[in-house]
Amino acid sequence: MAALDDLLSFNHTTEALGQVMGRLGWDQETMMPPGAAEQRGAEIAALEGVLHARRTDPRVGEWLAAAEARTDVDRAQLREIARAHARAVKVPAELAAELARLTSLSQGLWAKARANQDVAAFLPTLKHVVALKREEAAAIAEGGDLYDAMIADYEPGTTAAEIGALFDRMRPRLVALRDRLAGAQMPPSLAGHFPKPLQLKLSHEIAATFGYDFDHGRLDLAVHPFSSGSGADVRITTRVDEAEPLGCLYSTIHEVGHATYEQNIAPEFRLTAFGQGVSMGVHESQSRIYENQLARSAPFTRYLHGRMVEHFGPLTAHAEDFARVINRVQTGYIRTEADEVHYNLHIMLRFDLERQLFGGQLEVEDLEEAWNTRFAADFGMAVDKPSNGLLQDVHWPVGLFGYFPTYALGNVYAGCLDAALRRDVPDLDVALEVGDPAPALAWLRENLQRHGGLRTPRETIEHASGIEISEAPLLDYLDAKYGGLFGV
Amino acid sequence: MAALDDLLSFNHTTEALGQVMGRLGWDQETMMPPGAAEQRGAEIAALEGVLHARRTDPRVGEWLAAAEARTDVDRAQLREIARAHARAVKVPAELAAELARLTSLSQGLWAKARANQDVAAFLPTLKHVVALKREEAAAIAEGGDLYDAMIADYEPGTTAAEIGALFDRMRPRLVALRDRLAGAQMPPSLAGHFPKPLQLKLSHEIAATFGYDFDHGRLDLAVHPFSSGSGADVRITTRVDEAEPLGCLYSTIHEVGHATYEQNIAPEFRLTAFGQGVSMGVHESQSRIYENQLARSAPFTRYLHGRMVEHFGPLTAHAEDFARVINRVQTGYIRTEADEVHYNLHIMLRFDLERQLFGGQLEVEDLEEAWNTRFAADFGMAVDKPSNGLLQDVHWPVGLFGYFPTYALGNVYAGCLDAALRRDVPDLDVALEVGDPAPALAWLRENLQRHGGLRTPRETIEHASGIEISEAPLLDYLDAKYGGLFGV
Repeated sequence: MAALDDLLSFNHTTEALGQVMGRLGWDQETMMPPGAAEQRGAEIAALEGVLHARRTDPRVGEWLAAAEARTDVDRAQLREIARAHARAVKVPAELAAELARLTSLSQGLWAKARANQDVAAFLPTLKHVVALKREEAAAIAEGGDLYDAMIADYEPGTTAAEIGALFDRMRPRLVALRDRLAGAQMPPSLAGHFPKPLQLKLSHEIAATFGYDFDHGRLDLAVHPFSSGSGADVRITTRVDEAEPLGCLYSTIHEVGHATYEQNIAPEFRLTAFGQGVSMGVHESQSRIYENQLARSAPFTRYLHGRMVEHFGPLTAHAEDFARVINRVQTGYIRTEADEVHYNLHIMLRFDLERQLFGGQLEVEDLEEAWNTRFAADFGMAVDKPSNGLLQDVHWPVGLFGYFPTYALGNVYAGCLDAALRRDVPDLDVALEVGDPAPALAWLRENLQRHGGLRTPRETIEHASGIEISEAPLLDYLDAKYGGLFGV
Repeated sequence: MAALDDLLSFNHTTEALGQVMGRLGWDQETMMPPGAAEQRGAEIAALEGVLHARRTDPRVGEWLAAAEARTDVDRAQLREIARAHARAVKVPAELAAELARLTSLSQGLWAKARANQDVAAFLPTLKHVVALKREEAAAIAEGGDLYDAMIADYEPGTTAAEIGALFDRMRPRLVALRDRLAGAQMPPSLAGHFPKPLQLKLSHEIAATFGYDFDHGRLDLAVHPFSSGSGADVRITTRVDEAEPLGCLYSTIHEVGHATYEQNIAPEFRLTAFGQGVSMGVHESQSRIYENQLARSAPFTRYLHGRMVEHFGPLTAHAEDFARVINRVQTGYIRTEADEVHYNLHIMLRFDLERQLFGGQLEVEDLEEAWNTRFAADFGMAVDKPSNGLLQDVHWPVGLFGYFPTYALGNVYAGCLDAALRRDVPDLDVALEVGDPAPALAWLRENLQRHGGLRTPRETIEHASGIEISEAPLLDYLDAKYGGLFGV
């Protein structure tokens, strides 16, 4: 008993310090004065040192060995503490520090190289990042697969082989749908000028509509939208383009999905080892179902049209046509701007390349050519510049290998959850039509969000949906939605 | 050598974590969502535990015993590290934790009691705070004077006896000036409506005029204005009353004085033990000289008048009369709203009461009566309600006994610095008349600010001014300024 109690008390403090670290990250992206970056680096390094010392503290190992779980809650705590401890003790402190230093530095170098469309300038850094991540993965994998070790950081309990098989099953139907849509007529985008204050006002309103609790969060601007924090303080950000209002709005809704997952975790789980979203994939399932299955549904877009007219005045699209405008399908270079049909194809490309990279079949020097060849094959167009290709995303520059597939897993999970939600709340569209996603939000909170990391990622989705995880519900949904919207 | 290097490296991390703590405080007062207070308490307690463990780490004592200073910089480091370590090890951890918990709680209770004008509701808490602070002071003083031990937390190197003697010398001339001014005609305050965005725009402009570096700081709103952080990230706040623009503006300039002191400390001193303002009194000397001797000088107010007309349109006062409007003298209840003549009388009242409280001549139960009696005697008017009396300031409720006298010390220091500045920069008024305080700012940076805590507080002022600390320059300045403005 004493070992468990000591461990949980020790871990509570570690979790609280982890929240402080998250707050520093938020501040850095939203509030920090430009000249403070170097000092902030020292502050983050100091706090990271404290966290690392706590995660590798030998007492944690002793407590884990002696502790006996009394309840499911205890078991979830021990599972997550053991996972973090095992990982932390395997990675040499110097390697962890060197990786932190390098990836912090490389983000700036990547941004510069991307602005200059200069892959060659960034390759040595990327090579260094990959080499260190390889070393880290080898330390964690202890003889096992390197790429699997990295995936486990973001989606514990799954493997590259499983994901690869899933993607192989998804691809034919996605490509078939994409090809059918290629012949369909698409409406033009919204045109006009959409002032920043009005976009932010609408974002605040719609965030609240989707259950975001401003008493335990706030909405600010950032270059790349994100959600940050757990428990009682979960903050979101968005971005504004005055020529295009849907990016701001749907970024907000996406982050609200992430944030309400954190906000809705049972208060008694706060600052415990499992008191946060259980994996990146499950997290993404929440952001995606809010953004796509709910907010991009035809009934909700009709409601949204009215709200936008109220905020911005007359629009260049009619309410009845608005779902088609919002769900326009178009082949493009940029993952984050992709429609629901193309999105997973962008992920598959990245997954295959990073799997080859860490499997030893591909070298960093050949990565750009591999990207461009694959993109042309998959998307039928040639990459025109590195910012539309290899230098597009921040993930690889900062060492987030194994992260990309969780986006597609999130989509698959969202498909399962949506099928179950529609089964349990058959008249959901009636509510969405009047701008009331509350029945869906209550269902998600009760069945998934409030449990945090009580169960593993797979168990979380299967417990919530009552169905076995499969790509079928997502693909059925996409066929039905896009087929219906564009008559294909 | 090894001991010194190990100690300085260890302390660098502690200082970085101290900055993180400061950032949490800033966030709490400016950005934090209202529902996050409880979780923030846990986060702060966790970080406070880390800091306490580092400050009391036995290795610090060993390194201090073995370290040999090579330079003045080393000596300043060792002086400050030894001071913090000695204090930390003397206070039992449970007492420190209990004080932290109680004073965090009591702030809310005080705010409520003040809103309800209910001294009785707050007295038990205040009694508890005083009891714990007494216990803490006894642990630190080790047989010495309790009140001196508390003063040393804010102004090391001075004693209640010295401050008492200083105040005894100041009082007669202050009272005589106050009495002469009682018969003078005062102009009315500014009247009108001053929109918040325009007040903030003017505050940004004047902050920059006074050398505030927005590349290493930012200006936000808070209920009580403050400055936060050291080195490369020093943030300030202000408040806005749309009926009265001078509060916002002069609060900003006051905080700019604090903040530029921190921003201007030599970059190589950042995150060292002395890389911040050396004491509360010296800090206050900077905020006061910016706010009073510079920004409330007649030449600068004529420039400011033009800037305000530019921002707000015509004012109800003429430029030639603006110094009299800005420096109106009026007896009032509230310390923070007091003019330069009355301000120190407010401090003397608090100093004498807290000295008696910790000397055992006064009980908490009798504090309100003592306050009201003393206020009537000193200010010639009866306290009308507790929020204008005993419940006015947050300091005592949160345990800041020994802090108040540093405000008056700051005024005395500012008097010395101003005399030296006027000696060295004889044509300063010509620059102030055109809104250019740069010669004064350069003098302060070079002679005082850049050195941080390299010297003790007293040495800092005497090194910068080249004169021995005395009340005479301040009183001469007040007699000349107010005599000139109001013909008394």
